[in-house]
Amino acid sequence: MSFAAEIREQPEVLARLLASQGEAARRIAAEIERRDVRSIYIAARGSSDNAALYGKYLWGAMVGLPVALATPSLFTLYGTPPRLGDTLVVGISQSGQSPDIVSVVEEGRDQGALTLAITNDTGSPLAESADLVLDTMAGPEKAIAASKTYTAQLTAIAMLCSGSEAGRERRGELARLPDLMHAALAVEGEIGAAANRFRAMDRCVVLGRGFNYSTAYEWSLKLKETTYVVAEPYSSADFQHGPVALVADGFPVLAVAPRDRVLDDVRALLARLSDLEADLFVMSNDHRVLDLGASRVRLPDDLPAWLSPVVAVVPAQLFCYHLARAKGHDPDSPRQLRKVTRTW
Amino acid sequence: MSFAAEIREQPEVLARLLASQGEAARRIAAEIERRDVRSIYIAARGSSDNAALYGKYLWGAMVGLPVALATPSLFTLYGTPPRLGDTLVVGISQSGQSPDIVSVVEEGRDQGALTLAITNDTGSPLAESADLVLDTMAGPEKAIAASKTYTAQLTAIAMLCSGSEAGRERRGELARLPDLMHAALAVEGEIGAAANRFRAMDRCVVLGRGFNYSTAYEWSLKLKETTYVVAEPYSSADFQHGPVALVADGFPVLAVAPRDRVLDDVRALLARLSDLEADLFVMSNDHRVLDLGASRVRLPDDLPAWLSPVVAVVPAQLFCYHLARAKGHDPDSPRQLRKVTRTW
Repeated sequence: MSFAAEIREQPEVLARLLASQGEAARRIAAEIERRDVRSIYIAARGSSDNAALYGKYLWGAMVGLPVALATPSLFTLYGTPPRLGDTLVVGISQSGQSPDIVSVVEEGRDQGALTLAITNDTGSPLAESADLVLDTMAGPEKAIAASKTYTAQLTAIAMLCSGSEAGRERRGELARLPDLMHAALAVEGEIGAAANRFRAMDRCVVLGRGFNYSTAYEWSLKLKETTYVVAEPYSSADFQHGPVALVADGFPVLAVAPRDRVLDDVRALLARLSDLEADLFVMSNDHRVLDLGASRVRLPDDLPAWLSPVVAVVPAQLFCYHLARAKGHDPDSPRQLRKVTRTW
Repeated sequence: MSFAAEIREQPEVLARLLASQGEAARRIAAEIERRDVRSIYIAARGSSDNAALYGKYLWGAMVGLPVALATPSLFTLYGTPPRLGDTLVVGISQSGQSPDIVSVVEEGRDQGALTLAITNDTGSPLAESADLVLDTMAGPEKAIAASKTYTAQLTAIAMLCSGSEAGRERRGELARLPDLMHAALAVEGEIGAAANRFRAMDRCVVLGRGFNYSTAYEWSLKLKETTYVVAEPYSSADFQHGPVALVADGFPVLAVAPRDRVLDDVRALLARLSDLEADLFVMSNDHRVLDLGASRVRLPDDLPAWLSPVVAVVPAQLFCYHLARAKGHDPDSPRQLRKVTRTW
């Protein structure tokens, strides 16, 4: 199974996840509520860490909990883990194998914290270490660059934020995800043409904000893994505190900006970058943003903002696939990488 | 006052900070302990956000508190701030002006959380919004690229982690900082020669781990601001989960790796990158790491690991200054930037 095939498999993966894990997600959400958790502490690496970034915004906005991304070296190398008793400790990992992620969850459990694993392997060390397990049900992922397991992780987090009575409307929106992903996949021709225009690119920045800060990170990581472009993700706010100095005539800027409460902020920055003659590629469903791009891909029109990262990453994945091919690289054989990476 | 002058002023700035704010730092640390804070929530942008990253490791390792870096858009744009009642909410900002950072601290105060401002302007909106204020005492910073206010912020955080009785030994080490910085400044000639070797570089990665993850971030930001190199920071663990695919023959990798508990992990990665024929520039006080570099700068020998980021960033700043000049850029006039950036 190739990267391209797994990208295209995503509507089916999400449909299966939504159909089979809804009850488990509601049970876990209820347990989190019952335990009076005060904050969330998430350990993850690579694409899973980008899913954690989505969780940081979604659990913050929808469940009202502050979320910290873990510092695994405090657990594995310094031997000075922080006190986690009041927190929900979450490990996110496709394989559930990386020792640093398992260490954080084990320490949380030893301290008496509630622990949760979001993983594609319910027999993995990570799943074994946690009180609660949510199975991402993505099936075997063969491509080294993750795609379907990333969107399954995002969806799993969205399901966990839709568990209570207040989540009924959200669950209705969740059910539309497979169709929205089909719509996002349908514009592959346009994306291929846009990617081809960037075939000489060796560096760029990728902008997103709020919920789609995660999309900027995942798009950047996929670019590095499959196209070897040094792609750095920024929020539209952070980018103005220094890195905007990079932008001069023709500097490539990729942006993901669906309709959302953060849109005016992102659009104002993109207008400024357009004035600076950045080479701007935008993905949006807002015509004013689309008009700012030197090239563009249209996102589905009726995209709920909170779920937009699940869908908006699909054209980003396709962009990377086509750019890798245009550059003459094989996206199924990234240099230096194996499917499971173990770090401490 | 120029970037170079402010870099060289740092020993004096830290000596003044340590001499004048020790009592204030101990009082604030005692108040944090008294209030039974369960976690820390830090809002910052740019270089101050890199100081926050140091705080994430130091407060974790030395005070045992989990630390979250804030998501300001949840406060300013989404209108859905998380519950912060049990947290210490910290705003870090040189100017104390950026509305998003002030908003996070104000929301914390309104929710009844203990709030702290670490700022160079005690009359700023940020200082006005917080219960507790620690003055970084760096004097006016004129250069657009921050240097002395960054090391003052790190030192302020280190002082806050040395406030209790257990902190006596740490305070002794803190007192050595000005001398250690003098030693770091003394190798400017070597750094200029090393920087000159990279004058054609337009992209690179910067590696650090643990306490010096912050140094990798700050070095990267300074490179972008003053040399327009797309420089992306990574921990030695995160780098292996995908981005290592970037590295092929001659790809520039900058690394900061002083003696520390994370050193074996970082050294193992650097050895692998050396085998991949990366163009490796290392800053270390460990001869095995120094031997791995194609070029190198020696850090002071007797550097306490927890304070190493305060000192190790100095040669990184000088590297950026000399690289900017070698590239024909004026490090005192970065493109697009003003001293105070206001974001929402």
